[in-house]
Amino acid sequence: MSLVSLSKQARRLESHPDRLLPADKATRAVAQQLYQRVSSLPIVSPHGHVDLHMLVKDEPFSDPATLFVTSDHYMTRLLHAAGIGHDQLFVDDDKRSEAVTRKQWHVLCDHWSVIRGSVVQLWLENQLADIFGVELVPAPETADTIYDQLTERLAADECRPRALYRRFGIEVLATTDDPASDLSAHTALAADPSWTGRVIPAFRPDRYLEPDHRGWPDAVDALGAAANVDIGGYDGFVTALESRRQTFRHLGATTTDHAHLDARAEPLDRSEALRIYRAAQNGDISRDEAAAFRRHMIFEMARMSCEDGLVMTLHPGVLRDHHGPTARRFGPDRGADIPVQAEFTHALRPMLERFGTYPGFHLVVFTADETTWSRELAPLAGFYPCLYLGAPWWFLDAPEAIRRFRAAVTDIVGYTRTSGFIDDARAFCSIPARHDMSRRLEVAALAQRVTEHRLREEEAEEILLDLVTSQPMKVFKLDRGTGDAE
Amino acid sequence: MSLVSLSKQARRLESHPDRLLPADKATRAVAQQLYQRVSSLPIVSPHGHVDLHMLVKDEPFSDPATLFVTSDHYMTRLLHAAGIGHDQLFVDDDKRSEAVTRKQWHVLCDHWSVIRGSVVQLWLENQLADIFGVELVPAPETADTIYDQLTERLAADECRPRALYRRFGIEVLATTDDPASDLSAHTALAADPSWTGRVIPAFRPDRYLEPDHRGWPDAVDALGAAANVDIGGYDGFVTALESRRQTFRHLGATTTDHAHLDARAEPLDRSEALRIYRAAQNGDISRDEAAAFRRHMIFEMARMSCEDGLVMTLHPGVLRDHHGPTARRFGPDRGADIPVQAEFTHALRPMLERFGTYPGFHLVVFTADETTWSRELAPLAGFYPCLYLGAPWWFLDAPEAIRRFRAAVTDIVGYTRTSGFIDDARAFCSIPARHDMSRRLEVAALAQRVTEHRLREEEAEEILLDLVTSQPMKVFKLDRGTGDAE
Amino acid sequence: MSLVSLSKQARRLESHPDRLLPADKATRAVAQQLYQRVSSLPIVSPHGHVDLHMLVKDEPFSDPATLFVTSDHYMTRLLHAAGIGHDQLFVDDDKRSEAVTRKQWHVLCDHWSVIRGSVVQLWLENQLADIFGVELVPAPETADTIYDQLTERLAADECRPRALYRRFGIEVLATTDDPASDLSAHTALAADPSWTGRVIPAFRPDRYLEPDHRGWPDAVDALGAAANVDIGGYDGFVTALESRRQTFRHLGATTTDHAHLDARAEPLDRSEALRIYRAAQNGDISRDEAAAFRRHMIFEMARMSCEDGLVMTLHPGVLRDHHGPTARRFGPDRGADIPVQAEFTHALRPMLERFGTYPGFHLVVFTADETTWSRELAPLAGFYPCLYLGAPWWFLDAPEAIRRFRAAVTDIVGYTRTSGFIDDARAFCSIPARHDMSRRLEVAALAQRVTEHRLREEEAEEILLDLVTSQPMKVFKLDRGTGDAE
Repeated sequence: MSLVSLSKQARRLESHPDRLLPADKATRAVAQQLYQRVSSLPIVSPHGHVDLHMLVKDEPFSDPATLFVTSDHYMTRLLHAAGIGHDQLFVDDDKRSEAVTRKQWHVLCDHWSVIRGSVVQLWLENQLADIFGVELVPAPETADTIYDQLTERLAADECRPRALYRRFGIEVLATTDDPASDLSAHTALAADPSWTGRVIPAFRPDRYLEPDHRGWPDAVDALGAAANVDIGGYDGFVTALESRRQTFRHLGATTTDHAHLDARAEPLDRSEALRIYRAAQNGDISRDEAAAFRRHMIFEMARMSCEDGLVMTLHPGVLRDHHGPTARRFGPDRGADIPVQAEFTHALRPMLERFGTYPGFHLVVFTADETTWSRELAPLAGFYPCLYLGAPWWFLDAPEAIRRFRAAVTDIVGYTRTSGFIDDARAFCSIPARHDMSRRLEVAALAQRVTEHRLREEEAEEILLDLVTSQPMKVFKLDRGTGDAE
Repeated sequence: MSLVSLSKQARRLESHPDRLLPADKATRAVAQQLYQRVSSLPIVSPHGHVDLHMLVKDEPFSDPATLFVTSDHYMTRLLHAAGIGHDQLFVDDDKRSEAVTRKQWHVLCDHWSVIRGSVVQLWLENQLADIFGVELVPAPETADTIYDQLTERLAADECRPRALYRRFGIEVLATTDDPASDLSAHTALAADPSWTGRVIPAFRPDRYLEPDHRGWPDAVDALGAAANVDIGGYDGFVTALESRRQTFRHLGATTTDHAHLDARAEPLDRSEALRIYRAAQNGDISRDEAAAFRRHMIFEMARMSCEDGLVMTLHPGVLRDHHGPTARRFGPDRGADIPVQAEFTHALRPMLERFGTYPGFHLVVFTADETTWSRELAPLAGFYPCLYLGAPWWFLDAPEAIRRFRAAVTDIVGYTRTSGFIDDARAFCSIPARHDMSRRLEVAALAQRVTEHRLREEEAEEILLDLVTSQPMKVFKLDRGTGDAE
Repeated sequence: MSLVSLSKQARRLESHPDRLLPADKATRAVAQQLYQRVSSLPIVSPHGHVDLHMLVKDEPFSDPATLFVTSDHYMTRLLHAAGIGHDQLFVDDDKRSEAVTRKQWHVLCDHWSVIRGSVVQLWLENQLADIFGVELVPAPETADTIYDQLTERLAADECRPRALYRRFGIEVLATTDDPASDLSAHTALAADPSWTGRVIPAFRPDRYLEPDHRGWPDAVDALGAAANVDIGGYDGFVTALESRRQTFRHLGATTTDHAHLDARAEPLDRSEALRIYRAAQNGDISRDEAAAFRRHMIFEMARMSCEDGLVMTLHPGVLRDHHGPTARRFGPDRGADIPVQAEFTHALRPMLERFGTYPGFHLVVFTADETTWSRELAPLAGFYPCLYLGAPWWFLDAPEAIRRFRAAVTDIVGYTRTSGFIDDARAFCSIPARHDMSRRLEVAALAQRVTEHRLREEEAEEILLDLVTSQPMKVFKLDRGTGDAE
């Protein structure tokens, strides 16, 4: 008897209450009990990429395709790999008619097999079922029905961004921002008495620290203007960065974020830093000089964090825009960022020798190269009081990799040297699905340790509660008001 | 009570019907049902190293030792590690008397503990039990009995190569061939009306692309002769390769195969390619020039694949003939090939920027460095429509690594970006054992996802059927007649 | 109902009889039966760092803090990461009053959450419960009670070192020793008729092989004095090393041990070796020359092993004293050793091409970079008769990594190419906990293979018995008297 023929007509979408919990019966029972304790705790989101203007305006989401297909690069990359050209997906706003978006929704439903088994399926089904009440599995024959149902739901007041923010139980939501940004969405929300949530910026100075990138001189000019500081010389440049960090802190920022190709941090002699800065302003800088300057500035960022208390987070080791033609035609963040080998033991050494034991300094390191978990990062986090292991990141932010993460690091450093979950989401509605996934996986791993008599049940529960809320609050200094230094 | 003393005399060989299925009872039940669906599907073998002359001649296999011990480098390497000198294993054909092969069979039985736990045990026991009806576990005291029994079975008509080909249910079997080969076994089978199977060659030009290897000038001469093209200059060389690809395609080839130390593919200026080719013909070429030329030619191979539609498969990152003394005395393929670190993100970039979105181009990448699965290959396959993740290869073609493979890549790219199984077998009789292993492991992994409510049961079944037959047929273009370009 | 509130007051320390055994019921039953067979077998410890003077003097251990907190760098590193300054932990002996050690014990109990989930918790709880009968989980409120109880127990005759040596069931215990050491503890025990155990030294010449390290000339002088050889020239230096190896062998040594930043072994021309040695003696040596000399000497060590039969063990790939300020103030071995990427395929090739098939040569390779297990080490060990895969080492000597080790290598090389467990312990009382952990993990992995019908139960038992005793006895040549060459 074929399972396929049996069930083709009857596929119901469902977020099973035991999804991601262990198969073993006894272990699952422990897991179910643990999960009860955290399933409805508030969401702490110390790092992500949500566009806040959605919360400022609080308008309904436009349509299902924009929400679930074209604005999520986890999704568009898989569709691209399946042969769907970007021109079908990235359509200018003024041309996104209902016909276009309905067709895009069909594209997804027609290619559902492409996301099957991937974390994108898990998150999306979770959103469709739990937030929007969809009960059919997307497929060519259900595409229109679901599209219509979603369109109706999206128009409802309880599906507008602020209502969802409340419904998701978000305690705090951090964005990622350019140092020269006016942070207008943050100030608008702060000034809006009807807004009761907590949103905070994060300081992401990547492009100011890579002086051989096209547009660097203009960017630095804009930075100087934002800070109202003369950046004609290196000292002004540093002062401008320090000044903008203060502005960010006053708007609630607790972190800075850095994403370069490698993790190296090495100070230059002051004279050399000055020289390279001057050369960069003249557009006369070699690739090696630019890299040296960037590594010097990362070291400087650690120095500033020791002074102003902002938590330093690193997301190194991803080659951006691997496919030039795509970047040139459609811009960055189109799903063509590919990791490279990471190295931390040598790379972080100068920074750690200088600041590694500085009181109150927090450094959270993320990686897309899982080989470094047991080899470098856990050993480093097990010695340096500043260093925390960031949650599995980018391609590794998915069930099996998260399991491997806990398996790789826990025996070496326990739980207190890890950051707790960050969702890193651009797609606002995916936030609860991602946090729920994380909680279920922590629960499953802890339950297994209980069943194997490696943790007492009450210890597992304490650890779980820590990981879900206390630990990220502490590591990202969200429990301290406005990022005060210690 | 000792289990050992209990059972020493009673060891029966058995291929347990539930082998490799999950231990958990509920999960195993799901797995059993899934396995029923694929256990007897035909075998698709898009890549391997079987010597076709065995099918042309269709003579009985000579003896158990030649079949199971000395012609299988998975086996000889482990025996070598256990201290059995190659001179005991590699005996010239004219000296392989019954006394010699019986002694070699004893060597294996005496050292059975050496293969215990390894995939070699799994495959060999499976062959002995399921194909040849052996019911005793090999051991010093059972060696002669089994030898005699196998000798008798091998003489039977139903154990001759063509009978086994039919019994194994092979749908298509690809070999790996030198571009200058006359492909006589393929033409002989094609001309034999009593042969009803499908065997196809694959184009493996490694030695023509490494111009600093001894024998390169002679090899290129032979290539020119085979193609009937003057290879005195670079253009002729390229034409000869293109011409031989056509010949291979006309005999059914759908793939080319490439195994170099790294995966780099980078075009040279035409003038530089011409210059190096000329230098190589004069025997005056540096190691760096040779590497540059090889990387250029790999790029060219991708260009040709876009034009003629042959699927390009890469097996990079293994250092051949690690032990010089063995290679000098006994030749290559003696089990002394050892992997090195692999790198794909930078290495493949030039090729992928140029051909990565070319319609119909298929590139299947295999690796013996599993760290690249989650870090590089799955991210690349999740963006580039041409790129498929090859099945775990060489040392990784075994149960635990195959499990790790699915765990490493599925959350990132689902199932449709993976190639399905290839057996890579030299040992003809091991083919069904290898495919059965693969099916059981796919079944086990899918069953676990069902029990953890990450896949619906009917989805798991659809995926499984795809992975076992449709996917390899599609990825290796076996469903298209003779390798037509799209 | 909160599990936490329920249990806070009632936390009992317990070494659960099924700890680390598989959760699945059927698999656990197999595991329990297997475990019975090995739980009380003698301990074979071929590599470790116990200070033998403790056995010579046989005085009671001084206090709980010294025993469990400050002398164990696995523990102090985690406390350091938690913000406990080294000055609180590393107190001069003459200032270690009862007030100080009680306070240190409190520090541990106050920070129990820091080790939770780590292997340090597993080992420590096991020691407290099984050796010393502690029944309370350490916590601020139980710290004094446990301290007092431990103090009383430590004073008892049955807790003195020799009594514990017998109680632990140690069959043989190897130390790690400087070639210039007088090995006085070994000679004292050998001369003591009341001592019936077997302790043997191991030859660890690291600092003599790195001629650019400060103190090298003095060290070499001391070596010459110990060997009574003139080390004014390179030949004398080599002779001194050979001579000390003989002395070690006569005291029972069966191994040499080598821990450098990389694994490379490459011979120099004799004239170049002489030149660099001379330059080093003049203090005029570059970093590259020093590295070349070290790699040459590692090659020489292999040559000597072929001649004198000592097993060569390599522990490469850890950057020592990552945090300079800590090393300068508190010395080495303070938990700031961090692994780097390892490479073996190229690095070991010259040594293996020359000595890889030399009869009786044993080379055991350990790594802290688990990526090399399936990629390089298992493939190498599956060909070269000399090469054995060392047990998971340093940060990998813990449950999850040990599971990954067997999963990574077994399909490739079975069991006979692995070394069996080594505890690498400095903390004497942790030895039985570590071996018990290893046995449970071997049992669990084998039981799973039985339940998945990949091994017959009697095979699993034979393999288990081998791994626990026969295999380390054979690999480290502990079964041959005094390290005789074959």
